[in-house]
Formats: sequence, structure tokens, C-alpha cells
Amino acid sequence: MALPTPDGPDANAAAAVQELMGGKFGEMSTLMNYTFQSFNFRGRKNFRPYFDLISNIAAEEYSHIELVSATINLLLSGTTKRSDRNTAKNAKAAPLEGEINARNTYHFFASGQASLPVDSMGNPWTGANVFSSGNLKLDLLHNFFLECGARANKIRVYEMVKDPCARAMVGFLLVRGGVHIVAYARALEKLTGANVGALLPIPDVCNKKFPEAAVHEKKGIHRIMYRWSPDDYSQLAEVWNGPHPEDGGELVVVDEVPEGAPWPEFDEEPQLSSPGGIDPDMLKHYAKILG
Amino acid sequence: MALPTPDGPDANAAAAVQELMGGKFGEMSTLMNYTFQSFNFRGRKNFRPYFDLISNIAAEEYSHIELVSATINLLLSGTTKRSDRNTAKNAKAAPLEGEINARNTYHFFASGQASLPVDSMGNPWTGANVFSSGNLKLDLLHNFFLECGARANKIRVYEMVKDPCARAMVGFLLVRGGVHIVAYARALEKLTGANVGALLPIPDVCNKKFPEAAVHEKKGIHRIMYRWSPDDYSQLAEVWNGPHPEDGGELVVVDEVPEGAPWPEFDEEPQLSSPGGIDPDMLKHYAKILG
Amino acid sequence: MALPTPDGPDANAAAAVQELMGGKFGEMSTLMNYTFQSFNFRGRKNFRPYFDLISNIAAEEYSHIELVSATINLLLSGTTKRSDRNTAKNAKAAPLEGEINARNTYHFFASGQASLPVDSMGNPWTGANVFSSGNLKLDLLHNFFLECGARANKIRVYEMVKDPCARAMVGFLLVRGGVHIVAYARALEKLTGANVGALLPIPDVCNKKFPEAAVHEKKGIHRIMYRWSPDDYSQLAEVWNGPHPEDGGELVVVDEVPEGAPWPEFDEEPQLSSPGGIDPDMLKHYAKILG
Amino acid sequence: MALPTPDGPDANAAAAVQELMGGKFGEMSTLMNYTFQSFNFRGRKNFRPYFDLISNIAAEEYSHIELVSATINLLLSGTTKRSDRNTAKNAKAAPLEGEINARNTYHFFASGQASLPVDSMGNPWTGANVFSSGNLKLDLLHNFFLECGARANKIRVYEMVKDPCARAMVGFLLVRGGVHIVAYARALEKLTGANVGALLPIPDVCNKKFPEAAVHEKKGIHRIMYRWSPDDYSQLAEVWNGPHPEDGGELVVVDEVPEGAPWPEFDEEPQLSSPGGIDPDMLKHYAKILG
Amino acid sequence: MALPTPDGPDANAAAAVQELMGGKFGEMSTLMNYTFQSFNFRGRKNFRPYFDLISNIAAEEYSHIELVSATINLLLSGTTKRSDRNTAKNAKAAPLEGEINARNTYHFFASGQASLPVDSMGNPWTGANVFSSGNLKLDLLHNFFLECGARANKIRVYEMVKDPCARAMVGFLLVRGGVHIVAYARALEKLTGANVGALLPIPDVCNKKFPEAAVHEKKGIHRIMYRWSPDDYSQLAEVWNGPHPEDGGELVVVDEVPEGAPWPEFDEEPQLSSPGGIDPDMLKHYAKILG
Amino acid sequence: MALPTPDGPDANAAAAVQELMGGKFGEMSTLMNYTFQSFNFRGRKNFRPYFDLISNIAAEEYSHIELVSATINLLLSGTTKRSDRNTAKNAKAAPLEGEINARNTYHFFASGQASLPVDSMGNPWTGANVFSSGNLKLDLLHNFFLECGARANKIRVYEMVKDPCARAMVGFLLVRGGVHIVAYARALEKLTGANVGALLPIPDVCNKKFPEAAVHEKKGIHRIMYRWSPDDYSQLAEVWNGPHPEDGGELVVVDEVPEGAPWPEFDEEPQLSSPGGIDPDMLKHYAKILG
Repeated sequence: MALPTPDGPDANAAAAVQELMGGKFGEMSTLMNYTFQSFNFRGRKNFRPYFDLISNIAAEEYSHIELVSATINLLLSGTTKRSDRNTAKNAKAAPLEGEINARNTYHFFASGQASLPVDSMGNPWTGANVFSSGNLKLDLLHNFFLECGARANKIRVYEMVKDPCARAMVGFLLVRGGVHIVAYARALEKLTGANVGALLPIPDVCNKKFPEAAVHEKKGIHRIMYRWSPDDYSQLAEVWNGPHPEDGGELVVVDEVPEGAPWPEFDEEPQLSSPGGIDPDMLKHYAKILG
Repeated sequence: MALPTPDGPDANAAAAVQELMGGKFGEMSTLMNYTFQSFNFRGRKNFRPYFDLISNIAAEEYSHIELVSATINLLLSGTTKRSDRNTAKNAKAAPLEGEINARNTYHFFASGQASLPVDSMGNPWTGANVFSSGNLKLDLLHNFFLECGARANKIRVYEMVKDPCARAMVGFLLVRGGVHIVAYARALEKLTGANVGALLPIPDVCNKKFPEAAVHEKKGIHRIMYRWSPDDYSQLAEVWNGPHPEDGGELVVVDEVPEGAPWPEFDEEPQLSSPGGIDPDMLKHYAKILG
Repeated sequence: MALPTPDGPDANAAAAVQELMGGKFGEMSTLMNYTFQSFNFRGRKNFRPYFDLISNIAAEEYSHIELVSATINLLLSGTTKRSDRNTAKNAKAAPLEGEINARNTYHFFASGQASLPVDSMGNPWTGANVFSSGNLKLDLLHNFFLECGARANKIRVYEMVKDPCARAMVGFLLVRGGVHIVAYARALEKLTGANVGALLPIPDVCNKKFPEAAVHEKKGIHRIMYRWSPDDYSQLAEVWNGPHPEDGGELVVVDEVPEGAPWPEFDEEPQLSSPGGIDPDMLKHYAKILG
Repeated sequence: MALPTPDGPDANAAAAVQELMGGKFGEMSTLMNYTFQSFNFRGRKNFRPYFDLISNIAAEEYSHIELVSATINLLLSGTTKRSDRNTAKNAKAAPLEGEINARNTYHFFASGQASLPVDSMGNPWTGANVFSSGNLKLDLLHNFFLECGARANKIRVYEMVKDPCARAMVGFLLVRGGVHIVAYARALEKLTGANVGALLPIPDVCNKKFPEAAVHEKKGIHRIMYRWSPDDYSQLAEVWNGPHPEDGGELVVVDEVPEGAPWPEFDEEPQLSSPGGIDPDMLKHYAKILG
Repeated sequence: MALPTPDGPDANAAAAVQELMGGKFGEMSTLMNYTFQSFNFRGRKNFRPYFDLISNIAAEEYSHIELVSATINLLLSGTTKRSDRNTAKNAKAAPLEGEINARNTYHFFASGQASLPVDSMGNPWTGANVFSSGNLKLDLLHNFFLECGARANKIRVYEMVKDPCARAMVGFLLVRGGVHIVAYARALEKLTGANVGALLPIPDVCNKKFPEAAVHEKKGIHRIMYRWSPDDYSQLAEVWNGPHPEDGGELVVVDEVPEGAPWPEFDEEPQLSSPGGIDPDMLKHYAKILG
Repeated sequence: MALPTPDGPDANAAAAVQELMGGKFGEMSTLMNYTFQSFNFRGRKNFRPYFDLISNIAAEEYSHIELVSATINLLLSGTTKRSDRNTAKNAKAAPLEGEINARNTYHFFASGQASLPVDSMGNPWTGANVFSSGNLKLDLLHNFFLECGARANKIRVYEMVKDPCARAMVGFLLVRGGVHIVAYARALEKLTGANVGALLPIPDVCNKKFPEAAVHEKKGIHRIMYRWSPDDYSQLAEVWNGPHPEDGGELVVVDEVPEGAPWPEFDEEPQLSSPGGIDPDMLKHYAKILG
């Protein structure tokens, strides 16, 4: 999906969105949980549909950290005054001065006004967030809980950050994360008969209340499991089928990856030497020499 | 590449290999560093070859965490006595007893004798390991150092773990990591003219001294940059070209992903309920009901 | 003790008060230090009065984390705009918007505007804060220092947060914490003869300078050790006796637990789905079915 | 319950048992999760039975950290050679020498051969393990998952540690933890109608397979919710009722706290100065002076 | 060098400057990296000039943590309202009230408005920041990268904090840190022949653009290596010689330590009891007695 | 003091000794606590003797981390089989194989068999170990406690590690650390009149029981405060005077730094490329070229 341009740079909005990247319930966590569970799957032959489900969702999560990162980067672009000390007349300039009260100083010191694997308090993501017990039922229960917790965090970020770029991202992830919630609920149901879907939605607000999510649900995107590998994950549909627990629509596996959106171009921030004011003539010169 | 079967289960060998997964210089670090640098790249238009290089290497790193994970899982498979308490006659059995002195108890408590995003001391990988300053030269210098540090760790794991499975993995990663070392050296050379390649090898032992690496170098794999995206990363060859700094062979970009190896099947560990002793009849029953 | 209603919601006051909960010198630390020292006490027969003292204080500390939690919860209640998305007309509402600059975003993302085991910077409390060396003199010295450090933190929170609810809590804890300071000083004196009480007060301001503490000291509460177990801790008075080192009043053991105060009711925060907008009719319906 | 004497001191068994104390799924986690959720409960009036359930379970958890601590302390008692340097003839003695390879050196350096709030790798428990979202359904789901994860850890510790003291403790906690699993399953069922109990047991081995748990289940202890407060938690039975999901027995609330067991006496470890070789005459002398 | 008086107290400026103290690239890191590498140096006889270089730079770094600390302390002095509760008339005063929104509350709770070994987000410095592989080339490469990263952080702090005291400190450290960058570049060149100096400056702005750095470079201080030990480090000049890679000036070893500047006096903060309102008469009295 | 050669390499002894380096009560902690308290001292004019005391002790601590480091390095030297892969005939060699069960793998992966700023469990030292409240009495009390805790750790390491090198180091540090204990006791006594010295020794074993400490105490080294700065710390003797609390000997300030011992040479570990097998001819060649 294509992200709209933010209303304006907003460092504290970016800091808040970091919760969805590096928070305990952020996209780093969903990505890495499913990746490790997929790597570590034992007895794959007997439980192939579950392996396929977890592995396929892991593949999709990679695009989610990309989307959250892009949102953060767009929100941070231009937060400080653009200027190049190499060319600046005023030696006394303090282009970052305006952000001395910003909540996440790592955005200005550690990164070039860009995303980091940290949460909304700047604390780094940790491998301790990965759960991979090897017991299938327990791992699926964990994943179901993790996705519900992730949903709560997304909703709360939505409630805090009004910016249309952030909300478009959250709306989309509510829908795709919603697919994962239902997927793990279905998997638990197949495995045990428990009607886990009856717990939904958690928290008690449905996606359709969020315009930026509703727009995707209208297209049925909350009922589609994209199959990310042309040659693999063939038993997905043994779990992903039947009616959606919230609106009763048919769950379907689609054998293609969703069309990508144009990746936003992030402008240079010369006051941070990001990416750096290298003389292009020098660059060409060396390129010629080094061939 | 296909991993050979280990000589036997070996919990402390697996614990040691974890350094290459979740250590500061493990594959989680290389993967996530390049992923974030790729996401955060500013001024891409002017520095496209460098963006392509970093992004393309990030893509390859994903297969490296997979390979390290598989090695750990193979080494851990069967470390404890396989038995199923559901069917066990001896209620007093302690199937994990033999590993009470194992260095990494998380392998037995937190995972089902499988890999975790932790290092050789069991400490979790952290987002603090990601460096993404936004300054291109500094990020490239970091990456060059990171890969050299990673190489030192690989060599030391090789020196400690004699198991052929672990060494096959290390040998392969020495070669592919070696490609990344040269890539970042080349990028710095293109950008500045400094002959960074003259620093190599770091540490001062060349890959060819390791039989499991030499076998790949003989095929020239240390001179190949695989292009992981059919539609992107088209300017790779503007950096990846010229002679290899150690043996002078021609650096080449190859427009395909290396053929995968069969993914090893990991046996069940019923004493850990991994994946779990679910009654297959019950499973079929519910599958029918839930449809 | 009953907490007064805060002057108004104040997220950053709540963030500051967290230091007294999850800080290195917060109530989590005093509670857990004495709990573990009590569990781990060796040679109890020969040192029973000291065991009784530590165990009894541990019991009281539980009520202190409760009190700090209640203060934080009261300060956070209503900090954001109350609204229920399930019933909201305005789909564009951002009820948490006003707190995008709040220092502790965990209060809004991780909790439902409520207390967490973290300090004033949002860093989680850690078991590394527990000291339990097993050497009685060293553990008592630690406890004496810990309580003095805790006192310094309480005073500084008092100096920062003017809210009457927070100050009433601090005032009360200064008095009860003061009892613990004297208790550990007395224990060291009994054990060694050193007049540790002569060091007090640390820091160099006495409780009576704080009106919210003075009100309790007037009632003599700074000289009372409540005995929390009807059947145990019978040798408390062998340590807790003699004159108070600061005002010379008689130290007394009282064989009852102080009367509790009404627990404040915390209003719902529907914009956070806390506790959640479950349809009460549905609830009754299921209750009937499930019986 | 009374703990049997261990077969002998065993430092690495104690190190393993620490997972049940300070691990992510240890008793510190269950205690603190429910304690904070209880403190933070919003809208208590409308959801009183759930508040009562969580608060009452929190109260029971305190006795569980005590039990795990006692087990660790018993296993560590006597692991090193008892001797008192104050009286030792051989100035060259190294009484801890035998434990230089012990997995958890904190047991010998930081504590006096006693329990610490750390896990089986010696990593400290952290407040990051507490989940208290404020959304009731999500918190209950978390608790259900947490207890299942805790159960998996208990079973794995049982599989590793054969010592009868450790196994008696695990057996008892499997039963009481099992009560909490069912309690949160019931709460979710009451709240939503989903038959969460059908997921049990997780992992897929029932308590009755463990002799040390079966002995308690025979007495029906897995169906009893003890009410820990004489004046409170009166609505417990609105959730805790109906048939046990595994064996169909009737769930009952019992209005009393289970009879305590005699607290084990832990012998002195003079080689660690624990509690310390204070001259008893000196002690009496000062006691007389200080009065 | 002597620090100018700040324009005024500024808590968030102090919080930002902490990055240069306890950040991953702060002076704690440079100090401790070189200290450990110096302690751990193997094969010193064959590589003496490198040992001398690293050890000598370690010695200088100690003065750098002192300088950063002094800057922070000056910026924090007077941030809150000075008052002494022991003498205050108004019992209701809240002298720290004005800093309830300050980014780093540890400055007011944990320290007496003074520096701490933490970074700009208040996260503590950690030993994980120390790299000491033992391989000389790798350690030198690390140090070169570390100093470049430290330089980037200094520049960014300069861009954010306009205060003349902070900028004087940064200007001086840019110059001295610049010496260390060149030193490690030279060492790598000596060892391998690679012209590492051609990478400079990293980031792509030279020191002379910063007036507070330029003033020192005019005096040639960027070309001087001070020898910190009268009896040691005699082979420094075997590495530190030749032309400066940026301006071509001659690198020189100077056999003396730079003249110290007067250490600033930090005023008391009585509202924090720092250092504490001890009665001077009492003090004299005891001094006489204890004499 | 000169360290004796260890009885033999011993990796787990080295791992244990790390507690005295990077543990909460290790020499990193004493060094950094006093360093920061010295930097942060407010109101120095009125409390000069205390400033002098803390600063002077800070200076001595630097030599203590050096001594602990040297001990660790000596114990680790030769733990693995020395061999150089560049010259090794047997390509299959695994020189580190013998240490696959060593408790601290960082010694072999992260360092070149050398010390690291970590504790006996391999956990890194953290700035959270620094206490610098600004309140003089509280800081002195902290320091007194810290030194007593450090003493307990030293004794326990002594009890575990029989190696003469380790014990010589511990014996010496018991004496010098003992000086610091008495120094802070004296400071508290001067400031308040409390006879804190009566608490000693903590733990309850006196230094003279340890032959390696007794040898220094016989020379009176436990009564000497060395003055580390020729031009400063002139008011030390206002605190450091009177009788030693344990043996009554006169406390004296000595205006010189103790004579250093020869720094041990650490042999190369070629199997770790530490420092690295650089061709000496190449080295000379480049040295000539680069001049």
C-alpha cells in the first residue's frame, strides 16, 4: 500500500509509532517469532498445514517492518532545519535546536532522523521477545495472544497520532494483523475444536470502526491469505478456510503476493550529513580510477 | 548448501554456535543492520549503487540466519532421551537429566531443543546492535568492521567446534561473509579512493586455510554477488567489480539466487511435547467437523 | 491511609511517581529485598529477632506498592479524553492526542493509564536490585542504606510533584519508611554496638518538615512497628525498643495491622478499551448458558 | 505442603529450578502480573467477579515464590564444604572449590547459597515480564497463556531434575497452576462464550501422569479455589464453577486458606559467613547495654 | 581547557550532552575500550608501538569523561529553584516543580543535578560497549570506527545544543578525538599499508567548520600527541608521524601533559540536600572529639 | 604488587575472578562510583576533606582494575592449545575444543582469552551500578556499604579459587579495600559522630585470617592512605587519622604512590590470531615506505 505524505514532520509522532516497530508487540516481534518458530518446527510431516501457516505469515511480516519504518522516516523527514555546514554561512547555526525536547533523541544522534529497532521509549527490541517453545499448541496460543496484544497497541497508537500517514499505516496493519489473529484462532480450532474465534475482537472494537482499516475490509482484504512462496506453503488452505469469525465472509487463499506500492523517497538531511556531502566530482574521479 | 548430519547431538556445541546467531556479531546483527540501513537510506537517487549493495546483502542475510538455526537444531536434536510421558511406563523418568549441566538451559526450557535469538552465553540479541547513522561513509565503515568482527567470531567457533555440520556451516558463511567484507571495502574505495582492501584478511588467516571454506572458494563463490531481486538492485555492478583484493580473481554479479538446499527435517522430541502428542484420530475428527 | 483526590490528571506527575514504584530505590525493591532475605535466612534459631524484623517489614512493604500504584492510577485517570470508539460519531477522533508529549508512553500503550513496574524513565524494575548475601550484618547494612536511598528519592519526588494525592502518599511513606530505617539501625546496634542511629536523618532534613509526614508523626506512627502476623514474629520487640534516635520517643510494637483505607475506584477509560466495552446483555446471556 | 529433604545438595539442580522463580514464566511473573492487574483494575463495579478472581490468585502466588525459594535453598544447602575460617586450622582451605564449575555462580557470590530473583541462566527477573493492558479480555487471555507457558516450564524442569524435593514442589505447583489455567479459561468463557477449556491440557500431557501431582489431584485439590481474604473476593464463585474441563469434577470455592507446612530450617553455611560468626557473648553483652 | 559559564541552566541540554558521556559512542566507551585493550595486549614485545599508542590514548580519555561531566554539571546547576527545606518558611514549596517535564529525571532523583554514566535517553552505559578481540588489526579497525562514530555524535550534539559551554567542550573534543582518529588510521597504515586516512573526514564535515574546534586547530593541537607517562610509551612516534591526512601538517609527539584548566566549582543545591545541610558547628564539634 | 604465576591455565577460575572486575561489587563499580562522585561534588569548599578522600580513593581504584585484569589474563593464557592455522599442518585442528564447556565463552569469542568488563556470569558491568546522589552522607554510606559488599565478594572468590595468582591478588585487594572501608567509616564518623567502625569487620572474618592479606597487614599497609596527586588532596589527613578500628594501629597518609610491580607479559595466542600473525617482513616494508 502507498503511504500518504504526512501533514508535517512530527518527531513525537514518530517516537510513538516506534512502539509498532520495536515494542514488545511490534512488528519486529511478530516477524521474529514466526521466523524462529518456522525454523524450529519439529515433526513437520505430521503437522504440515501449521508449518505452512506460520512460515507464510513470517514472510508477510517482513513487509510490515518495512511499512512501519517508512512511516517513521516520513514523519521524521524535515523535523530539523535543513542546512549544510559545509556551505553554511552562519557558523553558529544549531539546526537540531528545535528538537532538544523531542522524546527520542536517538532519532537525531544514532540515526539520521530515521527508524530504529526500539520502542516508543527508545528501548531496544530484544530477542527475549521471541517465544518458540516447540509445543505447537502453546506456540499457536502465544501467537494468537501476541497478535491481539499487537492489535491493542496499534489501536492505541491510532488514538494518539492523528497524522494521516501514520493512520493509513495502522489501518492497513489492523487488517493484515487481523488476518493473522484469525489464522491462529483457526489453527487452534483445527487442532483442538475450541471455538477460539468467539473471543474476537480483542480489544472490543472492530476494525470497521477505523476508516483507514474499513477501506481495506470493504475490498475483502481481511479474508485473504496471500501465499508468499510459489513453490511452497501448499497446505495453507487446510487451516485458512471457512467463515470469518467476525463478519462471516469466506476465508480465501490467494496465490500471489499483493502488488507493492512505490517506496517513498526520503530526502537528504544535510545538517546530519545524511547521507553526506561528498563532492560528486571527486566521486566520479575515483570511480574512473578504480573502474 | 546442504548441511551434513552432525557426528552426534552436542548441546554445548549448539550453545557455542548460538554466538553466530544472536551474538553482537551474529547473523541477526548483519541481517538487521543492513535491513534498517536499507529502509532508512536517504538521497537514494544520488547514491543508488550503494543502496543496491546494502539492500541486496540484507536479502542474502536472511538465508544465513536460517542456516545457523538449522545447524543449532541439528546439534540439539536427540541431546536428551526421547520418550513420551503419555505412553511412558516409568513415571519416574527424567529424560532431560543428562543435560542438567548443559551451558544453555534455555534450549531445554524456552525452546524445544532448538535455536533462539541469543548468543553463546544465552543473552538475547538486542536492537542496540543495529547501527544506522544515515551517514553513508560511516555506515559502510561500520559494516566493514561488523563483517570483520563476524569473521573473527566464525573462525573462533570453528576452532572450538569440531562437528562437521557446524564446520560446514561456518565454512560456507566464511565465504559468503567474505563477499560482504569485500563489498563494503569496495564501496568505501569507490566513495573515497582509500584502498581499504589492503587491510584484508582480518583476522590474519585466509579462508583457504579452512577446508570447508576452500571447497567453495575453488568454485569461485567468494567472487560472486548474487542479485536477489529480479527487478531491482540493478546498479550493484558499479561497486561490485574489479579484482578480489586477496586472490585477484574477477568480482562478478550473478543474476540469480543460489539454488537452495533441502531443508533438514527435525525429528520430534516427545519428552518436550515438541510438537506435542496430539491424538491423530482426534485431529481428523475435528478437521472433518470444522471443515 | 486514604488518598485524597488529585488536583487533576497529570501524566508527568504519574511518570515521576513511578520512581517510587519501580526505581532502584522504589517499593518493589524494598518489598523484594526483604522477601528474599526472609526466605533465605540461615541459622534462624540463633538470630530469630532479626528474622522476625526483616520478615515483618517485608509484609508491610506489600501495602506500600499498593499505595504507590493507587497514586499513579489516580493521577493517570482522565489524562486523555474519554470516549468510546464503539459509540463515537467522529471516526477521526484522537483521544490520546493530548499526551503525545507525555514522558512515559507505556502508560498509554502498555497499560490502561495505570501503574507499571518501571521507574521514572520507564525502565523496568529488575531482580538485580535484590541484595541477599546471607551475611546478616551485611544484609542489615544494605537494608539501612536502601531505606536511606529510598528516603532521598521520596523527598525528591515530593519536591517535584505538588499534587496533594502524591504528597499525601509520600508523607505517609516517609513515616513508615522512617520506621524501617530506624529498625535496621537498631538491628545493627544490637548486633554490634555501633550507634548507627546517630547518622540520622539521611538526607539531612527531618520528616517533621513535611506537613503530610508531620501529621502522622504527631500520632506517633513513626514509633510503631505493626506486627503483621498474629502467630509469628514474636521476637520483634527484642530489636524494636528503646528511644527513637531522632525525637527520643519510645519505640513500640503494636500487635495489629493498621486499619485499611477504602481502595479508590478507578474509572473506566473507554478510549483505551479499559476494561472494554463488552455488551452487558451478551455477558448475561453467556453467564446463563455457561451456568 | 511440606517439602521432602533433597537426596543431596545439587547446585545445578538448584540452578535449573531458578527458572520457576525468576524466569519469564516463573512464579515472580505470575505473582507480579496478577498483583499489578489487580491494582490497576478499572470499572471494578461492573466486572467484580473478574477482579475477585485475579486478586485472589495473586494472593496465592505469594506462597508459590516461597515454595520455589525453599526448594532452591534446600538443594543449595551443603553444596560446598562447611567450615569456619575464624576457627579453621588450614589457612589454605578453599571450601567453595568444588563448585567452581557450577552453572550459577551468583548462588555462591551474591547469595549465601540461596535463591535469587533470576532464571536458570542467572538472568534477573524484569518488570518487562508484567502485562497489564487494562483491557480485561486481553489481560485474561495473557494470563491463560502465561499459565500454560509456566506449565510447560514446570514440566521441563521436572523432566530434568529427578530430586524428590524439586519434584514434590513441581507436582504441587502443576496442580495449583492448573487451577489458575482453568480459572482464566472459565473467565474467558464467561466473558465471551468461547469454550477455551477445550484447548487443555497445554502441553499435551495431563497432570495425572506425574505421581507428585496425581497425589494432590486425587484429593481434589485441582478443583478447589481457596479464598484468601475473609472479607473480600466474595464473587469468585460466579466464575469458578461448573465442571473441570479435563476430568469433569465440580469446581468449588473453599473459604479458607490451605494449612501451611512447616517452614524448613536452613542450616548455616559458615564458609560463606552466612549468617555470620558473631560471638554470642558479644551479642549478649551489647543486648544488655542497649537494652 | 577552561569551560565558559553556560548561558543559563538547561536540563534538556544536559540530557543531550549525556550522549557524549554514557552513549555507545560516548567518552566512557572510548576510555574503557582502550583501557581494556591496553590491559589485554598480547605479544607486546613485537608490537610495542601499537601498545604504546592505545595505552597513551586511554590515559587521555580519562580527562575527557571529566570534561563532559563538568559540562553536564554546569548546565544542570541551578535548573531548579534553590531553597533549603530546613530553613524554608513555605512548607508547600516544590522547588523541582519546574523540571517535571525534563527528559532525564535521573538528574533530579538519582543524582544531585549532576552527571551520570547514562546516555541521552537515560540508559546506562554498559560493558557490552567494550570491544577487545585481541586481534590487533581488528581492534585498531574497531577503534577507528568507534572514534568516527563518536565524532558523528559530537557533531550532532553540537547541532542541537547552542549553549557556549557545551559547544566549547564539543569543539575541544572534536580536535582531540580527531587526533585519535588519525592515530588509529596511522596505526592501520603502518600495519598494512592501506591508506585509511583517505577516508577522512567522517562524517564529511571538517573540524575547521566549527569555530570552537577551529580555535584549537589553529594552534596545531590536532597534530599533537601528548605523551601521558614520563617513563613509558616511548615508541609512540613510530606510529604518530608524517603528515596529517586532512591538512598535511606534521604530526608530533609532545612529551608533556597539556596544562590543566581550573576545575569549575559547582554550587550547592540545598533543595536536593546536595551536599547536605549539616550544621557546621556540629561538624567542628565532632571533628574535635574524634580528632 | 607482583603477581605470582598461576599454577596453570584455568578458564573457570578466570570466569570466577571476573566477579571482582565487572560484578555489581567489582572494581569497575568502586572505580566509577568514586570517579563520578568526585566529578559531581557540590560545595567543595565547605567539605574539602571529603572531596579529597573520595577523589584520592578513585585514583587508587584504577590500579585495582588493572590488577584484576592481569590476574584474569594470566589464568586464561594457555587455556587452549597454541597453534597457528597459517602454519598448521593439520587443517582439521580444533585448538579451542578443550574449552567448549568453559563457563564464560566470551573469553574465547569476544576477547583473545583476556579480561572483559563482565561479571562471573558473563553479564556486562552497567552504569546502573553507579550511585552519586549528591548528598554527602548518603554517598559515604553507600560507599561504606559498597566496600563491605566488595569485601564479601573477594572473600568468596578466595574461598572458590585456590590458584596462588588469584589469591595473591585477592589478598592484596582485601587490604587496600579494607583501607577504603575504614576511610568511609571514618568520614561518616567525622561528619556525624556515629562510631561506624564498630560494625567492622563485615563479613565477620578479619583480613589476618588470609595469609595473602596478612603478609601486607604485617607491613602496616592496611593503615596507609597513599596520596595519589602531588599537588592535590591535601586535606586527606583531616579524615584519615586516629586508630584503626580493628587493630588500633595509627592511620597514616603517605605522600607517595606505592611502587609499581612489573607488568606481566602475556604470551601470544596464535590460535585466536591474538595479536595476529602478521608477516614481520611485510611490517618492516610498509614501515619504511610510510616512514
